[in-house]
Amino acid sequence: MADTRGAQDPWLLTPGPLTTSMTVKQAMLHDWGSRDAGFIAINDRMRQRLVTMIGGEGVFTTVPMQGSGTFAVEAMIGTFIGANEKLLILINGAYGKRMARICEVSKRAFATLEWAEDMPVDANLVKLALARDPAITHVAVVHCETTSGVLNPVAEVARVVAEAGKRLLIDAMSAFGAIELDSRQVPFDAVAASSNKCIEGVPGLGFVLCRIEALEKTAGNAHALVLDLHDQWQVIEKTKQYRFTPPIHCIVAFDQALNEHEAEGGVAGRGGRYRNNCRILVEGMRSLGFETLLPDHLQAPIIVTFRMPVDANFKFQEFYDRLKDRNFVIYPGKLTVADSFRIGCIGRLGETEMKAFLAVVAEVMKEMKVASGAPARKAAE
Amino acid sequence: MADTRGAQDPWLLTPGPLTTSMTVKQAMLHDWGSRDAGFIAINDRMRQRLVTMIGGEGVFTTVPMQGSGTFAVEAMIGTFIGANEKLLILINGAYGKRMARICEVSKRAFATLEWAEDMPVDANLVKLALARDPAITHVAVVHCETTSGVLNPVAEVARVVAEAGKRLLIDAMSAFGAIELDSRQVPFDAVAASSNKCIEGVPGLGFVLCRIEALEKTAGNAHALVLDLHDQWQVIEKTKQYRFTPPIHCIVAFDQALNEHEAEGGVAGRGGRYRNNCRILVEGMRSLGFETLLPDHLQAPIIVTFRMPVDANFKFQEFYDRLKDRNFVIYPGKLTVADSFRIGCIGRLGETEMKAFLAVVAEVMKEMKVASGAPARKAAE
Repeated sequence: MADTRGAQDPWLLTPGPLTTSMTVKQAMLHDWGSRDAGFIAINDRMRQRLVTMIGGEGVFTTVPMQGSGTFAVEAMIGTFIGANEKLLILINGAYGKRMARICEVSKRAFATLEWAEDMPVDANLVKLALARDPAITHVAVVHCETTSGVLNPVAEVARVVAEAGKRLLIDAMSAFGAIELDSRQVPFDAVAASSNKCIEGVPGLGFVLCRIEALEKTAGNAHALVLDLHDQWQVIEKTKQYRFTPPIHCIVAFDQALNEHEAEGGVAGRGGRYRNNCRILVEGMRSLGFETLLPDHLQAPIIVTFRMPVDANFKFQEFYDRLKDRNFVIYPGKLTVADSFRIGCIGRLGETEMKAFLAVVAEVMKEMKVASGAPARKAAE
Repeated sequence: MADTRGAQDPWLLTPGPLTTSMTVKQAMLHDWGSRDAGFIAINDRMRQRLVTMIGGEGVFTTVPMQGSGTFAVEAMIGTFIGANEKLLILINGAYGKRMARICEVSKRAFATLEWAEDMPVDANLVKLALARDPAITHVAVVHCETTSGVLNPVAEVARVVAEAGKRLLIDAMSAFGAIELDSRQVPFDAVAASSNKCIEGVPGLGFVLCRIEALEKTAGNAHALVLDLHDQWQVIEKTKQYRFTPPIHCIVAFDQALNEHEAEGGVAGRGGRYRNNCRILVEGMRSLGFETLLPDHLQAPIIVTFRMPVDANFKFQEFYDRLKDRNFVIYPGKLTVADSFRIGCIGRLGETEMKAFLAVVAEVMKEMKVASGAPARKAAE
């Protein structure tokens, strides 16, 4: 795609913050008062467009949350889980574990169900867990676990949760805007995401799309004033103002990012480009001998985990640095199950950049005298 | 001063977000990975420069907090006030009240001492309150209460708090960087502020300067994972990474704002420009018949509260809109004690802009057929 990022900046093949367009960044070249009618219109439009993205018109509302995606996730848990409620957290990576940590700190009752990091969560086991523990009122799931890059079957989970008469909270951080989530098909009470993942804005804003009927019942639940989604919602609805200074430049950039998301064909168009990026990356890396952690049917087109090559000449830090010198930034692994590194498919980049990246990987391997990206497991066979 | 803001943007005569320089905004025209060595160097430098600003080298550390100033204040209270401790909050405006609300939501033990909004807090009464209630372990005070614009005697408060063997927390939001606060002269454990006040960065980042010896004892205190200053500090120190995505563009802009703050002569230079802005504003508005809420010796050079004129032709919304049409944005009042409006002296503006603003006020009054800005109280005498 056309190179509209900052001229000398590296391409960020990471789970975010990621490469954004120059037009998104240029939207930040103005100052706005927080009571400015123009800014208020932008904020209203942003909130409405996010609701439309999940087909939630009239049923959902967007509650923005200053900070980052995790601020939105903690606000979601703290606001939706009341004193007499209990959250079942589905864990197959670091972001599920983080939700459990949030519950510990905020003193929410919770239980966990765990899977290996290279496995999706299993809706059948969720069903059994809900049958076993009637105290559970809510379930939380991560849409795409960027620890491994695995796509969780959110629709199946939502069905068993609804059948059991429970409520679903989704951390869709790295999937939102690229992987479809239709609230008319998939029942949930809230989904959290952020400005700087697949919508390709800059970091600084999280948001939670909340089912209004559920949000209305959460007054007084929150464990922190700044993280109270009910209060944030009420004040923005009534006054059009934020309770506390909003990250105005980030929000105005996010509005421009939403324009560009729409122009690309919305979730389908954005997701299509990322799927293409992912396909090129996986095919190209495989042809260089690298192996993905996940089989293709479990792989979300967001970030791909590769097993660390066994070749003694392959040193990850050197590989990383040499790629960085050529203007491509990749990401370390976060797995506990295998030694690995990660490469993102998201942000303002397309076929041209993915192919250029693969050429650079081949070049760097040659320089490092690495014969093949084949991983330890393969070599041991 | 030279006009380096965005070309068509209004001048923001508000308590923030405020007018920033074009060079500060242009710093946001790049994307950075959060593990980028360049970004890490910027973040280290930012943290160190803020410590230097209070003369806290080796004794204090900067803990950045995503979100806004209030996120930093809530993080400060939640982290420093443990389960068996009690906070005395000095209240003479909305920001003191907000700290009390934070304690209610986060279930911190607290007491309050209240003054009228047009009065500074009184250190002698703090001394008496501390003698009366030995359960109090900490005191919290707002440096400049932007509700009225009053400057609180933080040094005097700090002295009586230290004499009583208690600890002081300061919300210096709107004063930090323009009104001197030297930790070698004024004893305190923590001071919270933000990127977008007197340092003239963009909104999106709060920070708390913490006395290391006190911060070390706060592990496990925080009521929210994202607001845990101890954890945030530990992780940044050990890994140079944020626990959760930082608002990178905002931080890079803040670094540039700190360059410009230094170039202006630091706190003394920045404060000098604001004092001059304030003097020009107050003299000019008085010559048009307006009256300040506060006597000059209580007025901080941050934001000035004016009493609403009694003239029946003066309608605030029309006054506001006509000023806005001429590219100057002022701020509504927040007082409960008197009908008023506010005009800020901070941000990237100086003598030229303040004089241009006064000329516009005179023009608008003429158009509105307002004879004088004299307030109700004066008229009733």
